[in-house]
Amino acid sequence: MELSEPTPQALGTHCLLDLFGCPSDLLDDPEWLTHLLAQSAAMAGATVLSAHHHRFEPHGVSALCVLSESHISIHTWPEFGTASADVYTCGDSCTPQVACAWMIEQLRPEGHDLRVVDRGVRTRPLVSAHR
Amino acid sequence: MELSEPTPQALGTHCLLDLFGCPSDLLDDPEWLTHLLAQSAAMAGATVLSAHHHRFEPHGVSALCVLSESHISIHTWPEFGTASADVYTCGDSCTPQVACAWMIEQLRPEGHDLRVVDRGVRTRPLVSAHR
Repeated sequence: MELSEPTPQALGTHCLLDLFGCPSDLLDDPEWLTHLLAQSAAMAGATVLSAHHHRFEPHGVSALCVLSESHISIHTWPEFGTASADVYTCGDSCTPQVACAWMIEQLRPEGHDLRVVDRGVRTRPLVSAHR
Repeated sequence: MELSEPTPQALGTHCLLDLFGCPSDLLDDPEWLTHLLAQSAAMAGATVLSAHHHRFEPHGVSALCVLSESHISIHTWPEFGTASADVYTCGDSCTPQVACAWMIEQLRPEGHDLRVVDRGVRTRPLVSAHR
C-alpha cells in the first residue's frame, strides 16, 4: 500500500462526557444504556456496527458500540450517580456533540463536564526513530 | 440504592494516544491488533472481559476490549499510517501509560501524541437542574 499524507484536519472528534448526580436506576440498566448509546449514535449521524455490554456485581455497567465512524461508550457508577461517556467519530459527517446532548437529556445529571478533543492531529513534526 | 459522594480523586485515567508513520500492514490486521490490545491491557494491570473488532473495506480496523476497569480501543487508517488508541482504566490498580508504551513499541510509529486526562472528576459544583 502506498502511504498518503493525512489531511491537516483532524481525522476525528472525541467528546469526553462525565455526568454527576444521575438517577442510580438508570445507571444500572445495561439494556437501557446500550439502547441509549445506539440511539445517541444515530442522532449524531453515526452507524452502529455492533453493541456490547457488561454488568458488574453488585452494580455498574460498561456498554460500548463499535461504529462505522469509531466508537461510543459509557461506564457507570450507580453508587455515586456518576457516568463517564465517550463519543468518538471520524470523518466530517457526524456531530458527536448531538449524541452528548441526547445522553445528558436522558441521563438527567445534576451536572456534567464535556471536553471535546481533536484526534489524529499531528501536533509536532514527525521525527524518525532512526535519526 | 443510597447515593454516596464520589471521592475527590478521579474515578479513572484516560490515555488518548495518536500514532503517525506506522507500518501499514500492522494497521490492517484485525487479529494482531486485537491481540495487541489484550496484551497491552494485561501489561497495564487490567482484565479483559470481551474483545471485538471490525475490518473496514478496503482497509482500516476498529478493535475494542471491554475491561473490568473500563475499555481499551484502537482505530486505524493504514492508508495514512495512522492509528488512534484509547486506554481508559478506573480505580488505582492499573497504569494505562504502560499499555501506551507497549503499543508505541509494537506499532513502531515515527511520531505520536499522548494525552492523559482524568475522568469522573467534578470540576465545578453540582447545580441542580431545578434551581
